[in-house]
Amino acid sequence: MYSKIHVPLGKASYDIIVGPGLLTELPAYLNKLQASTGYVIVTDSTVADLLGEDLLKMLTDAGFKTGLACFQAGEASKHMDTVVTLARDLVRLGADRQTCLIALGGGVVGDVTGFLASIYMRGIPFIQIPTTLLAQVDSSVGGKTGVDLPEGKNLLGTFNQPCMVLADIGVLGTLPASEIRNGIAEVVKYAAIRDLPLFHLLEQKAQDILALEPDNLIEIVTRSCQNKADVVAADEKESGLRRILNFGHTVGHAIETASNYSIFHGEAISMGMCVAAELSVQKRLLTGDNANRLKGLLKSFGLPVIIPASIATPERLAMLTKSDKKARAGRVHFVLLKDLGETFITADVSDKELCMAIETNAR
Amino acid sequence: MYSKIHVPLGKASYDIIVGPGLLTELPAYLNKLQASTGYVIVTDSTVADLLGEDLLKMLTDAGFKTGLACFQAGEASKHMDTVVTLARDLVRLGADRQTCLIALGGGVVGDVTGFLASIYMRGIPFIQIPTTLLAQVDSSVGGKTGVDLPEGKNLLGTFNQPCMVLADIGVLGTLPASEIRNGIAEVVKYAAIRDLPLFHLLEQKAQDILALEPDNLIEIVTRSCQNKADVVAADEKESGLRRILNFGHTVGHAIETASNYSIFHGEAISMGMCVAAELSVQKRLLTGDNANRLKGLLKSFGLPVIIPASIATPERLAMLTKSDKKARAGRVHFVLLKDLGETFITADVSDKELCMAIETNAR
Repeated sequence: MYSKIHVPLGKASYDIIVGPGLLTELPAYLNKLQASTGYVIVTDSTVADLLGEDLLKMLTDAGFKTGLACFQAGEASKHMDTVVTLARDLVRLGADRQTCLIALGGGVVGDVTGFLASIYMRGIPFIQIPTTLLAQVDSSVGGKTGVDLPEGKNLLGTFNQPCMVLADIGVLGTLPASEIRNGIAEVVKYAAIRDLPLFHLLEQKAQDILALEPDNLIEIVTRSCQNKADVVAADEKESGLRRILNFGHTVGHAIETASNYSIFHGEAISMGMCVAAELSVQKRLLTGDNANRLKGLLKSFGLPVIIPASIATPERLAMLTKSDKKARAGRVHFVLLKDLGETFITADVSDKELCMAIETNAR
Repeated sequence: MYSKIHVPLGKASYDIIVGPGLLTELPAYLNKLQASTGYVIVTDSTVADLLGEDLLKMLTDAGFKTGLACFQAGEASKHMDTVVTLARDLVRLGADRQTCLIALGGGVVGDVTGFLASIYMRGIPFIQIPTTLLAQVDSSVGGKTGVDLPEGKNLLGTFNQPCMVLADIGVLGTLPASEIRNGIAEVVKYAAIRDLPLFHLLEQKAQDILALEPDNLIEIVTRSCQNKADVVAADEKESGLRRILNFGHTVGHAIETASNYSIFHGEAISMGMCVAAELSVQKRLLTGDNANRLKGLLKSFGLPVIIPASIATPERLAMLTKSDKKARAGRVHFVLLKDLGETFITADVSDKELCMAIETNAR
């Protein structure tokens, strides 16, 4: 019923456990891990009510010295002020260098808590308990933490690995369907860039997955984490190979920015992957049939494949894409597909080509 | 005329260059290091006027893409708001993941800039150019960065190593004598904990050093950095050996706290070393003669060996010492001397013993 992925990063290695009902087994995992003598659960206002208070009681009843620090739910909390306020909460709760944080929540909670753990008293350990599908398949691996500045997303942060990740697929039932779609987009990404068998599984089991059938959920979360772990282990600090994880994200981020983050990350990535597939077709790397298979898969999960005209003109999206912060010496690298499951990275995409690919996927 | 210390920390290894007039040779060092394509000098309002603007012009004239970001001088700037403001300056100056920061200033500049470098876009390189004796002998090695919270000093920070340190002893001539004394206290510390020849040198050359005679300055800065580098290389994350660097600091921090940081760090450390020496005598580890030699050396540099009654009662200082944040599981570890140049670490110091040692060194 459970699966385990080992993320091999030398001294920073850790395990991801995927399964149903893991939250209730946390005390046993903490005893096994022996990461600390005291714990502080860090979560947001939504998850605190749903899961946080119960977890606090469970850990306290099990004899662990445990505290809880909570911040307002929402993307706006991904801000340095939140980190400083939480740090002051930690001092108040008596957290010291031996304290271990437990990040309980979605992507924002993981990003903020991982960052806090890397700077509180110059670094304390943390455990991730991602409670959204997106966080389970994506944020569990990679060690990226951070907060936003008014000038851009994730401009302040660190690379910091958790000492354990528990992906309890049982908690996904409490999420709205839109949150599930949001995570599926990243699963499709892993399938498209390096896992053709996963692509087939998604094509065959879309309805079971959307119905949150446990075995299929465990399978797609595990395979996604394994794919990401393979890539990250080979390139921890994001210099080369890791770029393939940006498939769909280059244009996707531009769409998110243009929409002022009013649409889900997964939706933006879905549209971004369609543009990347179109560019791949234009460059005669990918067949039109395979591009259509990718779009069909995204559609079967209810993900958008067309960029609404209301978000921005193709020209503006192209401009925003080219000013991405990941540009090296001013050049944006595009992750294209040379087949389903195989990538090709190039900076050789003209403004005109980019515009044309966006237009083809816009209303 | 120059000396070089290699700090061996695997991938994070770097060199410290000590000598006169190094600032004017920065362009040559940057060409050799090839750390980046663009630089931002980070400094405070005092140093910007004295050295920063000139350095900016020199680097720009030498063809380096260079910017300058400046914050208000003083301990109060060691705050997360300063880091966030500087990060926004970096965005405005076009700094990206390839930009290298140049920390130009004393301890606060080094701490803040090193921290900023470790979190800006999840980490960019930085060069240290310490402009006070204290920063040259102490902050150049160790990789400790950080800012304060209202609840305590350095509660937020990272371990982050510079890619090079240039300790230009020529700039020390612009400092007031009190700033020189401030640095000497740390030099005496290295002598006392592990470098008897340095202890002898300090005893013989006190007047030359206070007159800023270059050869002696190079010698004491180099030996201090080498001593710290030896310790830090053996214990990068401060788990064991590195504790000996806290000689004089356990009680010293309590004195700083009690004085509300109105006295210099070096003065507090000087008094703290006297208390540690007294404890060592009480425990029959050190002879009274050697404790007096240490006090005599401190006095010869104009450093205080008696804690003024105006700062706090011995009881209050003892209480503050025992609540030091470095306490593990509630126990404070004291670094004592078993001879000049040799340490002995123990947590076995009763409140009464501590109070008595403080009282002996108080007015």
